[in-house]
Amino acid sequence: MSMMKAAVFVEPGRIELQDKPIPEIGPNDALLRITTTTICGTDVHILKGEYPVATGLTIGHEPVGIIEKIGRNVQGYREGQRVIAGAICPNFSSYASQDGHAAQDGGCSCHGYKAMGGWRFGNSIDGTQAEYVLVPDAQANLAPVPDGLSDEQVLMCPDIMSTGFAGAEAANIKIGDIVVVFAQGPIGLCATAGAKLRGASSIIVVDRVDARLEIARQLGADVALNFEQVDVVDEVMRLTGGRGVDASIEALGLQTTFESALRVLKPGGTLSSLGVYSTDLRIPLDAFNAGLGDKRIVTSLCPGGKERMRRLMNMVESQRVDLRSLVTHHYPLEDIGAAYELFANQRDGVLKVAIKP
Amino acid sequence: MSMMKAAVFVEPGRIELQDKPIPEIGPNDALLRITTTTICGTDVHILKGEYPVATGLTIGHEPVGIIEKIGRNVQGYREGQRVIAGAICPNFSSYASQDGHAAQDGGCSCHGYKAMGGWRFGNSIDGTQAEYVLVPDAQANLAPVPDGLSDEQVLMCPDIMSTGFAGAEAANIKIGDIVVVFAQGPIGLCATAGAKLRGASSIIVVDRVDARLEIARQLGADVALNFEQVDVVDEVMRLTGGRGVDASIEALGLQTTFESALRVLKPGGTLSSLGVYSTDLRIPLDAFNAGLGDKRIVTSLCPGGKERMRRLMNMVESQRVDLRSLVTHHYPLEDIGAAYELFANQRDGVLKVAIKP
Amino acid sequence: MSMMKAAVFVEPGRIELQDKPIPEIGPNDALLRITTTTICGTDVHILKGEYPVATGLTIGHEPVGIIEKIGRNVQGYREGQRVIAGAICPNFSSYASQDGHAAQDGGCSCHGYKAMGGWRFGNSIDGTQAEYVLVPDAQANLAPVPDGLSDEQVLMCPDIMSTGFAGAEAANIKIGDIVVVFAQGPIGLCATAGAKLRGASSIIVVDRVDARLEIARQLGADVALNFEQVDVVDEVMRLTGGRGVDASIEALGLQTTFESALRVLKPGGTLSSLGVYSTDLRIPLDAFNAGLGDKRIVTSLCPGGKERMRRLMNMVESQRVDLRSLVTHHYPLEDIGAAYELFANQRDGVLKVAIKP
Amino acid sequence: MSMMKAAVFVEPGRIELQDKPIPEIGPNDALLRITTTTICGTDVHILKGEYPVATGLTIGHEPVGIIEKIGRNVQGYREGQRVIAGAICPNFSSYASQDGHAAQDGGCSCHGYKAMGGWRFGNSIDGTQAEYVLVPDAQANLAPVPDGLSDEQVLMCPDIMSTGFAGAEAANIKIGDIVVVFAQGPIGLCATAGAKLRGASSIIVVDRVDARLEIARQLGADVALNFEQVDVVDEVMRLTGGRGVDASIEALGLQTTFESALRVLKPGGTLSSLGVYSTDLRIPLDAFNAGLGDKRIVTSLCPGGKERMRRLMNMVESQRVDLRSLVTHHYPLEDIGAAYELFANQRDGVLKVAIKP
Repeated sequence: MSMMKAAVFVEPGRIELQDKPIPEIGPNDALLRITTTTICGTDVHILKGEYPVATGLTIGHEPVGIIEKIGRNVQGYREGQRVIAGAICPNFSSYASQDGHAAQDGGCSCHGYKAMGGWRFGNSIDGTQAEYVLVPDAQANLAPVPDGLSDEQVLMCPDIMSTGFAGAEAANIKIGDIVVVFAQGPIGLCATAGAKLRGASSIIVVDRVDARLEIARQLGADVALNFEQVDVVDEVMRLTGGRGVDASIEALGLQTTFESALRVLKPGGTLSSLGVYSTDLRIPLDAFNAGLGDKRIVTSLCPGGKERMRRLMNMVESQRVDLRSLVTHHYPLEDIGAAYELFANQRDGVLKVAIKP
Repeated sequence: MSMMKAAVFVEPGRIELQDKPIPEIGPNDALLRITTTTICGTDVHILKGEYPVATGLTIGHEPVGIIEKIGRNVQGYREGQRVIAGAICPNFSSYASQDGHAAQDGGCSCHGYKAMGGWRFGNSIDGTQAEYVLVPDAQANLAPVPDGLSDEQVLMCPDIMSTGFAGAEAANIKIGDIVVVFAQGPIGLCATAGAKLRGASSIIVVDRVDARLEIARQLGADVALNFEQVDVVDEVMRLTGGRGVDASIEALGLQTTFESALRVLKPGGTLSSLGVYSTDLRIPLDAFNAGLGDKRIVTSLCPGGKERMRRLMNMVESQRVDLRSLVTHHYPLEDIGAAYELFANQRDGVLKVAIKP
Repeated sequence: MSMMKAAVFVEPGRIELQDKPIPEIGPNDALLRITTTTICGTDVHILKGEYPVATGLTIGHEPVGIIEKIGRNVQGYREGQRVIAGAICPNFSSYASQDGHAAQDGGCSCHGYKAMGGWRFGNSIDGTQAEYVLVPDAQANLAPVPDGLSDEQVLMCPDIMSTGFAGAEAANIKIGDIVVVFAQGPIGLCATAGAKLRGASSIIVVDRVDARLEIARQLGADVALNFEQVDVVDEVMRLTGGRGVDASIEALGLQTTFESALRVLKPGGTLSSLGVYSTDLRIPLDAFNAGLGDKRIVTSLCPGGKERMRRLMNMVESQRVDLRSLVTHHYPLEDIGAAYELFANQRDGVLKVAIKP
Repeated sequence: MSMMKAAVFVEPGRIELQDKPIPEIGPNDALLRITTTTICGTDVHILKGEYPVATGLTIGHEPVGIIEKIGRNVQGYREGQRVIAGAICPNFSSYASQDGHAAQDGGCSCHGYKAMGGWRFGNSIDGTQAEYVLVPDAQANLAPVPDGLSDEQVLMCPDIMSTGFAGAEAANIKIGDIVVVFAQGPIGLCATAGAKLRGASSIIVVDRVDARLEIARQLGADVALNFEQVDVVDEVMRLTGGRGVDASIEALGLQTTFESALRVLKPGGTLSSLGVYSTDLRIPLDAFNAGLGDKRIVTSLCPGGKERMRRLMNMVESQRVDLRSLVTHHYPLEDIGAAYELFANQRDGVLKVAIKP
């Protein structure tokens, strides 16, 4: 049995590189040899034990790689082909997928939905921080990388670009909207880029790290607010002449950002929430207009599937968006421990790290 | 100066019939002689001082009447014509209205929105529990009653039918959806009727008053749950085979109904909230799937305007819906004190009262 | 090799019952033993040679049956289970399906779309007018029949109910809309039922067969026009006070109905086309308002998949719609020649025939 | 009575500058002193007698100006304020406007719609190619110009920017769509800019004038096709790998562009038509997939109103789009005859002319 290196969850506080067997694939699967992967904020939640996964699970859900083997039923691909797969790998045959909610796919054998059921890599099956990964429902989830694009150029597609853009899409942004994005980590930066791509006339971004605010400007932000220097709610209301914003995007997962996002929203506006929360949320009565403000709160999990990945890579290829500046650090897989240490502590201006087996 | 009788807010706990001058109208207004009006739950909030209005304001926002006078600029109507106007009387020229949020119309002289700004009767101007009422922006808000329809048949159109149907519309109900409606007061009953009209395959209703559940069945409910007899969340999950509902409609305005509405929702589903809340709301982390369940929470204020009213009256005329069973009691305007007493205390199986000057 | 009876296209004008091998299934397929199927207008086009299919192909695309065998990869079903499958059996993994156009699925091995590619039964693979049929992508396409529903009750779900409802859905019908449906054959009747289910306040139906107009009334039509007795365009404009209809549904496939559907449409309205056309169409300049009337022309192919079928059967189960009156005749499979003869010539008031092997 | 200069339709082939009285305004109107206006392709149709208007009517519908007088009922503006108004000036109180079709506003006194009824300037009332123009329903239609924007910067907002963007909006462009725009006159160029703003990954433009194709590239086009040099349908299919485009925008108004736009469309795609046609149109059976391709044909008339104008000017102000390169020529109002001569004959690379009284 051939073996590979994989970053494995051992116990809270401990992810370590271990030797594991290279996966055996079934007829609907593919085996990818990973060429580049990365670490997500969710992986840090896993590391800290805040999001529970099985002991021994390989972590990671953002693959760029080369097809090593293809299952018998998977058509239209060839071994050696460069591909990505989404962080969310739905079974598109399921009831939930056919109903438009692929990321909440409850599996095939019942009528059910399962919250986040489409998220399998590094959650319910072994993930991508390894030399090899098994891609389930490969026919639906493998997306060929266009010629000429580097691993770094498409590395954001599987998760943060898909998620951030989804935040802008779910916010139903129209030409001429004023949009605010709370937090400019990787997801928030992609939401900023997404708001620009949908036609917002003005994008206000909020963070406390000036370097992030600067990247936000490059990606389309018009106004950058450092929440340590201004009262953000007051300032957004001032900037909009008291009107409020058409859409606010929450990209952090805290009560304070969620609440501010609701407060600065015009009646009739949409709060698009992307953050992963870890506490109950409070909706203040006044910010909610007692339920009579025609406000909407929508949440989005990263959309997956090969069609979504195809579209995102086409956006990169046609230079509509360039997220290479988010890849601030590079590590070989064998040093993934150092990468986690850097990323979890948000040191050295890290945004995303490229991990190469 | 001609005088009329009007139900006036005096102080918390006290609405009383007073003599007031019949309004003088401007060029864009109309004067209606009220033939039938009714009392809304919101009026009870006003009575109790929970929703503050100016002392001396005439209460009420659900008019059926006859045009007594028409302003110079108002075209296409004639004196003596039977009409209704929506509870919400927007200025459709405003920025908010042109942007699709007429009920949140902030007035014309600025770019602004004002939460609930389109609600004027019995809120920012004198209301309909009187012999006469001034209708602002009459060109946009007067809707002729089709021949052959009685006052009682159209009395629900200005508010509860428009609101309840909006709850079903905002829930984005599709053919074959399973929908649950929490609370079967007048608004909830209309939401039930609205869910039926949009093609829900199964409608579950929740209340504790069996008489209301019985009316709900007549309006389209398939399953009626008395929350004093069953655990509603458990029962809805059982009825849906663990899948959850496609849409849940909240029609009361309490933490408990809001929270249950979120708990029974499938990932990807929509919680459509109609209730008027009086406290902050709590979103439990698990019911919200930590923000990753693709759930949506939407709120709706009663849509107004003559086109909405025209459509609703056409639904009555073509016998798509019959809400006469909701009019449980009749009072002359002079006995409106007794009507408030009955309605505020929910005595004698009251749903809606018809008040006739 | 086991043999079965199947209705096979031989040459234009000739469909005949032949002995064919019972299909061998692959790992993603299922084998159904057909208990009831029916003949569609499209089958008559095939019979006449107007729609070309391969010689020797088994015809038919509306299956009700029992699972005889299940492929190795198909989970969540059991042999002996009663199921239906949609007339359109998409591969939901394809690019087109993931993009929201499952019926136009171009297959998996490329980025392509193929017009009507999701229609496989009796088109690109053997169909359902046989003792057995192979269901491809069975995991996505098999839908269990709810207990207590007869074959006749669900026989319309695979095609005409899904198609007719899609016509109403694509027309974007809103509460209070006035809708006209041109032609009241099986598809048109289902469109009428669908318009009722979406909340139309008034439904005008057009045909020349009074018996069909009578069934239309039972399914929700308010006004029935016999086009041999009135000028339909004039009459619809008269009925709408010169305003035109909000939506018109074309359910036949002729220039004359298409054109009338456009003429009676209000500016801003939607023409939802369901008919299968056999000639180029002409859009008259005046009816199209020179392209400036904000009119929309949308077309729909029957939606398939197990989620769609589940929803439609739930509508039957909850008695939202009852289409049994459309099944006017019954034949054993061995007499399918007589069934075609009757159906193709529209004799004896036939709407749909139930064929039972 | 004060007099002014105005470009007046005299008879087919003849628009000439005449002295006319400065309009008297009513209580809901405003009087603008025009500072800049322009000529539209529609004006050329009028000049040629192809689109009939009343003899003596002032032509033109694209105003930039200064408020000279305000009607008594118009609030929130001041004399001397710089404003624009949309080419389409709806009465937003009308049934059609409240129903979401403001441009098709049939007037207030009935339930009716009137195709293009919202287009009043230079159509049903005197237009903007004059020293002064009366703006009807001024409260709804006057939009203040943000400080710092020149007349030339906002001159495209009233018509071609609103129309071109509407073409992209109606095409329902999603992130990653491939879009083709047929014809790169002023409207087509704005549609190209609009497609970019909505997130198309690739925009193919078609014209025969290389200078226009070059401007298209600056506004966001990725591929420019000169239809005199390539077979456009073949080339678009080749560029999309046989898949077809997600959306095609027709911006000319000819059978040939309409038909090509339909042919290159993927099944499930949208043809968004902006052109003003002058003949019946033919829909080829094959390009329409016999009505079974889930294709959609949508048409749009220029959206108007102050909220639309506000949004468009904000897009200019925030440098999301810069259309100054479209203003190729300048004329004083007194030389408007020469301007028409140039523009009608498309000489000297003209795109749009700025006319200044």
